[in-house]
Amino acid sequence: MKQPRPLYTHSDWIRHRSSLRHLRHLLSSLTSRVILSLIPPVIAFTSVAAVVATYNTAVLWHLLPDLFPVLRASSLPYQLTAPALALLLVFRTEASYSRFEEGRKAWSKVVCGTNDFARQVMVSVQEEEDHVVKNALLRYIMAFPVALKCHLVYESDIGTDLNGLLEDDDLAILLSSNHHPRCIIQFISQSMKLLDLEEPKRTVLESKVTCFHEGIGVCEQIMGIPIPLSYTRLTSRFLVLWHLTLPIILWDDCNWIVVPATFVSAASLFCIEEVGVLIEEPFQMLSLDELCVRVCENVEEAIKSEKKIQETLIMRKEAATRNHSLNGHPKSGDEQKSRSNCNSPSSR
Amino acid sequence: MKQPRPLYTHSDWIRHRSSLRHLRHLLSSLTSRVILSLIPPVIAFTSVAAVVATYNTAVLWHLLPDLFPVLRASSLPYQLTAPALALLLVFRTEASYSRFEEGRKAWSKVVCGTNDFARQVMVSVQEEEDHVVKNALLRYIMAFPVALKCHLVYESDIGTDLNGLLEDDDLAILLSSNHHPRCIIQFISQSMKLLDLEEPKRTVLESKVTCFHEGIGVCEQIMGIPIPLSYTRLTSRFLVLWHLTLPIILWDDCNWIVVPATFVSAASLFCIEEVGVLIEEPFQMLSLDELCVRVCENVEEAIKSEKKIQETLIMRKEAATRNHSLNGHPKSGDEQKSRSNCNSPSSR
Amino acid sequence: MKQPRPLYTHSDWIRHRSSLRHLRHLLSSLTSRVILSLIPPVIAFTSVAAVVATYNTAVLWHLLPDLFPVLRASSLPYQLTAPALALLLVFRTEASYSRFEEGRKAWSKVVCGTNDFARQVMVSVQEEEDHVVKNALLRYIMAFPVALKCHLVYESDIGTDLNGLLEDDDLAILLSSNHHPRCIIQFISQSMKLLDLEEPKRTVLESKVTCFHEGIGVCEQIMGIPIPLSYTRLTSRFLVLWHLTLPIILWDDCNWIVVPATFVSAASLFCIEEVGVLIEEPFQMLSLDELCVRVCENVEEAIKSEKKIQETLIMRKEAATRNHSLNGHPKSGDEQKSRSNCNSPSSR
Amino acid sequence: MKQPRPLYTHSDWIRHRSSLRHLRHLLSSLTSRVILSLIPPVIAFTSVAAVVATYNTAVLWHLLPDLFPVLRASSLPYQLTAPALALLLVFRTEASYSRFEEGRKAWSKVVCGTNDFARQVMVSVQEEEDHVVKNALLRYIMAFPVALKCHLVYESDIGTDLNGLLEDDDLAILLSSNHHPRCIIQFISQSMKLLDLEEPKRTVLESKVTCFHEGIGVCEQIMGIPIPLSYTRLTSRFLVLWHLTLPIILWDDCNWIVVPATFVSAASLFCIEEVGVLIEEPFQMLSLDELCVRVCENVEEAIKSEKKIQETLIMRKEAATRNHSLNGHPKSGDEQKSRSNCNSPSSR
Amino acid sequence: MKQPRPLYTHSDWIRHRSSLRHLRHLLSSLTSRVILSLIPPVIAFTSVAAVVATYNTAVLWHLLPDLFPVLRASSLPYQLTAPALALLLVFRTEASYSRFEEGRKAWSKVVCGTNDFARQVMVSVQEEEDHVVKNALLRYIMAFPVALKCHLVYESDIGTDLNGLLEDDDLAILLSSNHHPRCIIQFISQSMKLLDLEEPKRTVLESKVTCFHEGIGVCEQIMGIPIPLSYTRLTSRFLVLWHLTLPIILWDDCNWIVVPATFVSAASLFCIEEVGVLIEEPFQMLSLDELCVRVCENVEEAIKSEKKIQETLIMRKEAATRNHSLNGHPKSGDEQKSRSNCNSPSSR
Repeated sequence: MKQPRPLYTHSDWIRHRSSLRHLRHLLSSLTSRVILSLIPPVIAFTSVAAVVATYNTAVLWHLLPDLFPVLRASSLPYQLTAPALALLLVFRTEASYSRFEEGRKAWSKVVCGTNDFARQVMVSVQEEEDHVVKNALLRYIMAFPVALKCHLVYESDIGTDLNGLLEDDDLAILLSSNHHPRCIIQFISQSMKLLDLEEPKRTVLESKVTCFHEGIGVCEQIMGIPIPLSYTRLTSRFLVLWHLTLPIILWDDCNWIVVPATFVSAASLFCIEEVGVLIEEPFQMLSLDELCVRVCENVEEAIKSEKKIQETLIMRKEAATRNHSLNGHPKSGDEQKSRSNCNSPSSR
Repeated sequence: MKQPRPLYTHSDWIRHRSSLRHLRHLLSSLTSRVILSLIPPVIAFTSVAAVVATYNTAVLWHLLPDLFPVLRASSLPYQLTAPALALLLVFRTEASYSRFEEGRKAWSKVVCGTNDFARQVMVSVQEEEDHVVKNALLRYIMAFPVALKCHLVYESDIGTDLNGLLEDDDLAILLSSNHHPRCIIQFISQSMKLLDLEEPKRTVLESKVTCFHEGIGVCEQIMGIPIPLSYTRLTSRFLVLWHLTLPIILWDDCNWIVVPATFVSAASLFCIEEVGVLIEEPFQMLSLDELCVRVCENVEEAIKSEKKIQETLIMRKEAATRNHSLNGHPKSGDEQKSRSNCNSPSSR
Repeated sequence: MKQPRPLYTHSDWIRHRSSLRHLRHLLSSLTSRVILSLIPPVIAFTSVAAVVATYNTAVLWHLLPDLFPVLRASSLPYQLTAPALALLLVFRTEASYSRFEEGRKAWSKVVCGTNDFARQVMVSVQEEEDHVVKNALLRYIMAFPVALKCHLVYESDIGTDLNGLLEDDDLAILLSSNHHPRCIIQFISQSMKLLDLEEPKRTVLESKVTCFHEGIGVCEQIMGIPIPLSYTRLTSRFLVLWHLTLPIILWDDCNWIVVPATFVSAASLFCIEEVGVLIEEPFQMLSLDELCVRVCENVEEAIKSEKKIQETLIMRKEAATRNHSLNGHPKSGDEQKSRSNCNSPSSR
Repeated sequence: MKQPRPLYTHSDWIRHRSSLRHLRHLLSSLTSRVILSLIPPVIAFTSVAAVVATYNTAVLWHLLPDLFPVLRASSLPYQLTAPALALLLVFRTEASYSRFEEGRKAWSKVVCGTNDFARQVMVSVQEEEDHVVKNALLRYIMAFPVALKCHLVYESDIGTDLNGLLEDDDLAILLSSNHHPRCIIQFISQSMKLLDLEEPKRTVLESKVTCFHEGIGVCEQIMGIPIPLSYTRLTSRFLVLWHLTLPIILWDDCNWIVVPATFVSAASLFCIEEVGVLIEEPFQMLSLDELCVRVCENVEEAIKSEKKIQETLIMRKEAATRNHSLNGHPKSGDEQKSRSNCNSPSSR
Repeated sequence: MKQPRPLYTHSDWIRHRSSLRHLRHLLSSLTSRVILSLIPPVIAFTSVAAVVATYNTAVLWHLLPDLFPVLRASSLPYQLTAPALALLLVFRTEASYSRFEEGRKAWSKVVCGTNDFARQVMVSVQEEEDHVVKNALLRYIMAFPVALKCHLVYESDIGTDLNGLLEDDDLAILLSSNHHPRCIIQFISQSMKLLDLEEPKRTVLESKVTCFHEGIGVCEQIMGIPIPLSYTRLTSRFLVLWHLTLPIILWDDCNWIVVPATFVSAASLFCIEEVGVLIEEPFQMLSLDELCVRVCENVEEAIKSEKKIQETLIMRKEAATRNHSLNGHPKSGDEQKSRSNCNSPSSR
């Protein structure tokens, strides 16, 4: 769980889709964390199956006194309840997956909120005298996803992660607070108060802070409130009961093959349950580290390229105005070009 | 249902995911509230199975007159309808679970609305003379989730919970109203009217009140309108009919094993139904107590740290302005630092 | 369908969850509307089963000429298509249930829109001279959910329901219009035009009217557009075909038990279909009457308590201002109290 | 597909829910469009079954040389994959149904957007001199759903449908454009530019145009992008393969009954697939014609009743002002009335 | 994957629904990309089945020493876990499909955002002096979906696609940036800054940029974060284990028919898995090329027709004003016409 999970790229998808994936998945089985954590229950149930088979064999070979009965039963009740067990397992996994999706979408909003917040601050705040506050504000905005990540991921160190991004005294205040992401939000709020903004623009920027609050709220609820425990326990107990009695059910049909049969059944069904439990709290599974790094890079590239783009546009505008004062609508040829070219892909 | 349900933390999740969970769930079976409430129906159906088995044995041993027939039937009709029963059960449980999720998300919005409302009030209302009203408003905002919780949770005492948060005369008015959360909303509305706010800011704050109204609306509907009773009754009747006739169906295959088979089948399927009924009204299951306490703590910490952060930022701004008037753009080195550091995690 | 459906309260939920519910549901079977409406198809299919069984017995006892064959067939094709039928049935029921949920959520929005609209009108419109219009506007707002309910529910009488709420001449105009809820919206629009409101406040109030329009739109579409008829007919025909041939399929396994077997299968599966059809148009199932009464009560209580709350707050503010002019920050002790008290629940 | 589909009314729902519906559906089977289009594949597979049965009979009666084997196989592999086929079929149908729902909801938004847009234009634009533009704008708004319908529905004639609604020269411009609904949006935009509106009001009206754009976007995507073809083809091929080999699988159990068994299985499963394909593009199935007519009627009734309501309200306001100047708060008795009456339904 | 995928039209839907589709799908099986990529695993499992069958035959014919056992086992454990495998497979495919839908809806928003943004720019920016900037801004807006497409689709060339749409120096800046769509957003932001807009209008336009940011965010997350790999691997391993042991399970029932049976089972189930993997990253499957071309065409047609529509409306307004000054309300006859005509379709 502690190895970094990179975001998927085009080449990962090509590998993901290759026909060899089944072979790769099969070969990696023995090193898979999910499978390793399945070993205790699967060994336990396989042992129970072996004990039942040994006992039944002993009874059949009359090694035990005759009052010991052979443990066997009709499989009909199992055939009738098998669909219910399968549905329960798979639906619980689906419920976990929908929490994974909820976490993913909450982060999608946090990430695009951060990017858009930074862009709006860059565009709106221009005055030279606000330069320090604007710079600090941008750094607080970039620090928010990092602080939220550290709040959510187990054994993460916010001090190291934010070391270069925030000033030392800000970091000290942050580390002394109880709730780091909300403390960053306070830094953002107070910085915005120092800026000299018009009211509608301030309202728009405030709405981005609200969006950060929502991100915290959704993530904290996913973290704080699991799938109802009665549901989780029901699935677990149903599975355990089923596999404890499975060797007895299968004895008539399978004899000693109950041992591998129990093994395969336990491995498959407990694995579904295990995956469901694993993705129930999705933040260890999502590539939050890389998402945060990307956000920082994006904002920093935007800061760098801002000047260049601005100058290009202003130059062109001035050129056009100069041109225009000479000979009217100079862009008509250009419009022509754009039109003809854009149609061309459709004729490809 | 009355023991407090704490929010999950990192260590709870580690325990939740441990391989030993199946053993833990199995051992806690006999103390589980869900399982205790299953005892009456499961015992009833197991008894019916025992009666059927006794009767059939009596008939087969000719203890009864020959005109009594053996109760047995082909299992084929059951095999054909088993998937429908399983689907019905699991879908009903899913419908309940989606109500649980709806309740959870409604509370997520209430909680983050409260936090954001309090933050905006702190940032927007600054004038010294509004100090009393601002303070009262913040306390009303903090009281809203508590009032909503008490409105939703059975046998909760709003007087005790809000005792320290509201003034005594406010509390008296609140307790005499018919609908406590809406009464808190009126306190909030009227306090905001006393504040001297600009129109766009007031509109934003009003929208938070609307968000509280939505929270009440969603929670009251989940509470007031259950899953259609015809659906719930259908599931219950289908289950009862199925288990009443199950011993007859299983007799040919199982003989006296019908008793444990009926027991296992009833325990499993009624447990799914029980979980579905239990989470249909989710507010007893959600950790609303702790959510409310957390909201209060968050707002109070924000109030405390507000001053400190504000002073740090103002001091820095002034330092920069002083600096700037001396030697131009002093922050360039700092920008450098931030950039170089933020890239470093990607090269980890 | 005509008996009033009250909203669920805490005590209803306790009864809903009690272990005795299965017994209660079983005993109420014979008076259940759903089950009564199942009688015709179930009797029809049971009769067909009886006819098939009689015919087959006649053939086997050679009561008929030998050229009549016994009607029997392998059950294998039925075992293979049983999951498809079960899925189809349960998915169609799910689709109906999601329409029920959509209707419930649309009403949740209408109800909380009404409450919030009324609150905003109360807070925003203050001038003494607008008193008549404000009062009329509040009554139109309270009339909207009632008009929508009467538009949606079969055999409801809008004249009686709105008799006390609207003036007689308003009611006359309303009754002469073709679309009552939209007519109420026009009354609201025109009243708002007569009020002397600032532009941003007016925009916010207009957005509530938009929310009423959305409520009408969603409810009318649920009412006007059923689940595609081809889907509904497919389910019905599949069920009928299946049960017409079921006695032939079961003959070999069950003999005369085909009659009760067909009865149980038809009762179970047609009941699922019946519930699906019943909740497809949810407005007869939702407790709209009580929701409307509650909205009116809430708004009226808000109107009554408005003055009292306002006075309490103004008095306190004035007291504080007086106090403050005497000795600085008098609220510090109070803050202390609030803080200490709010933390205490966490230490419970 | 070309017969008009009316919107459901209360009486349609009563018929929809009647116990006789199963009989009605059964009797209408032979005229059902869905079933007619199933004839080719079902006949094909039934013929294959007949051929296989004939061949097997010939082999068993030694009419063919002994080297021809009987075509038969164990049904076990089919029993194992039957749930997968059923799930695949039903899930694909669900995916189609969710597209149907998406289309329905998009139209719900377009319809209520049209109504609300028209209402806001009526209320906001009052000046006598804008009368022509206001009138034209209302007609453009009413024309939008019609143009969108014609854009989506196959073989519809926008010229005829809009003939009376738009001026002839507008219609000429519209017909010469490539994308009719977007052209209507341009008419709306340009008309709004000619109106003399305040900025916030204009912003609100512009947001309605955005809502029309969204309607176009959602509908065009549902139309332009089907369920992934690989999914559709997989379902179709799985079904075909299954039914081609079904007679061989069933031979041992059923002999000549393979022919009706294949018929029933093909009819049922291909019908599920057919319904899924039919509702995948929902606009032929939705009652768009009637929705458009209703929108026009609603807007026109609103235009007609606007004046009357306005006058009633103004008269009452003036009466009240006159009254008020005489004897204070005259409405208190009226309030009493409203309160007492509104409580009464709860005591019914 | 590289052939262009056109958007569906009415005629495609007619073909899509035709009864011959099953034949068409069957005939195209051998050229289908999905099926070609299934060849390796299916051949592998069929070979294993052949090896098992050969070995078992050799044992039964005593070609091998007697200590070699026949590989066979009871099918009961497989019958019990078959529903779980089927559900797992189909749910995973559903999860992929919901990602496909999410991508489709994100693009729906980008496309309608682009259209609406362009429309608002056209309507709002009118001043002659801003002509150059307005033109450039429109071209940047049109370039955004193209840049996003190239960012998402593998092996696409943004230089070629944007060649005619952007100026050469803009394109150079764009190509040198790390993240093309965000760079386009910066061009849009900076252009808007150069325009002379009122504040509320600017806020509305800014919100469109936010919508572009959201589009990037959603698409990048779908691309960067696949369905949890543990889920994908579980499905793949379960499938592989199942098919490796399937020949042993089927031997008793099928003998040499295990080879075709394994082939059919592997082909069907791996095909479901393959489709699930294929649509997990939807951007290769969506017709993004054609969507982008359409957006450009729409915006360009809007630019072209803008003038014409504007002139028509102004002319009519002036005519009406002139008319009006002569003889009052001239439009009443026209209103009559519209009303009578609009009602007529309902009487069809």
